[in-house]
Amino acid sequence: MSAESSEGSEEFFQALHYNADGLIPAIAQCAQSGTVLMMAWMNRESLQVTLDSGQVVYWSRSRGKLWRKGETSGNAQKLVEMRLDCDGDTLLLRVDQQGAACHTGRRDCFYRVADATARTWHIDQEPLQDPAQLYGGDSA
Amino acid sequence: MSAESSEGSEEFFQALHYNADGLIPAIAQCAQSGTVLMMAWMNRESLQVTLDSGQVVYWSRSRGKLWRKGETSGNAQKLVEMRLDCDGDTLLLRVDQQGAACHTGRRDCFYRVADATARTWHIDQEPLQDPAQLYGGDSA
Repeated sequence: MSAESSEGSEEFFQALHYNADGLIPAIAQCAQSGTVLMMAWMNRESLQVTLDSGQVVYWSRSRGKLWRKGETSGNAQKLVEMRLDCDGDTLLLRVDQQGAACHTGRRDCFYRVADATARTWHIDQEPLQDPAQLYGGDSA
Repeated sequence: MSAESSEGSEEFFQALHYNADGLIPAIAQCAQSGTVLMMAWMNRESLQVTLDSGQVVYWSRSRGKLWRKGETSGNAQKLVEMRLDCDGDTLLLRVDQQGAACHTGRRDCFYRVADATARTWHIDQEPLQDPAQLYGGDSA
């Protein structure tokens, strides 16, 4: 990683609007199927490391540190394409997802679907992997 | 809209974790193509109105009021399916999008793609509709 690529272009980073905590939401989408896998947060450092390495790195709000997706579970995300929305406050990451994206072992995190009439949530996706075998302490 | 459906099930709403401002991010995805169209925010009221009406209603942070998507532009979103993620802090809305989802007249808001090496953003999507013809004051 060169100093230049790590530092990046100021103009590039100025297009991003972070929230009061210096974070921007990042939606991860499977580049092959279009499935929305998860939503997590990035800060400038995680964004730089992601662009430098080609592997998706978020900022863990609960742990207060960089979160290299798959560091414990092995279920890493390879960055295929990074997109920014019109007002610069949301990222869309198109990724190659290794294994399950969700810490529950499911393909994606959006496994609860609303019954709008009954006002209940139904789970309609089974785990692909046993979360007990995936994790020591990784959160997703 | 009955009092019952407007009030909803407490258990249903308790599954949702709002941020400090009482908001939850909602990702809108085209139900047909899988394209991620936009990300906006909902509060409990907008969620209830969306479920009651079947038309997507966000909370506009800039205007501090309910934002009936398409109220000015006509580019409404019909709710096909609402999903909630594993930790209850992000919604995924699968929608039938009328016209352009973005206030720039583009199909979706993620029309800037990163060149990871040059650290620049490139626009790779042209407007479908002229935004000047779509809006009086609607923001997206």
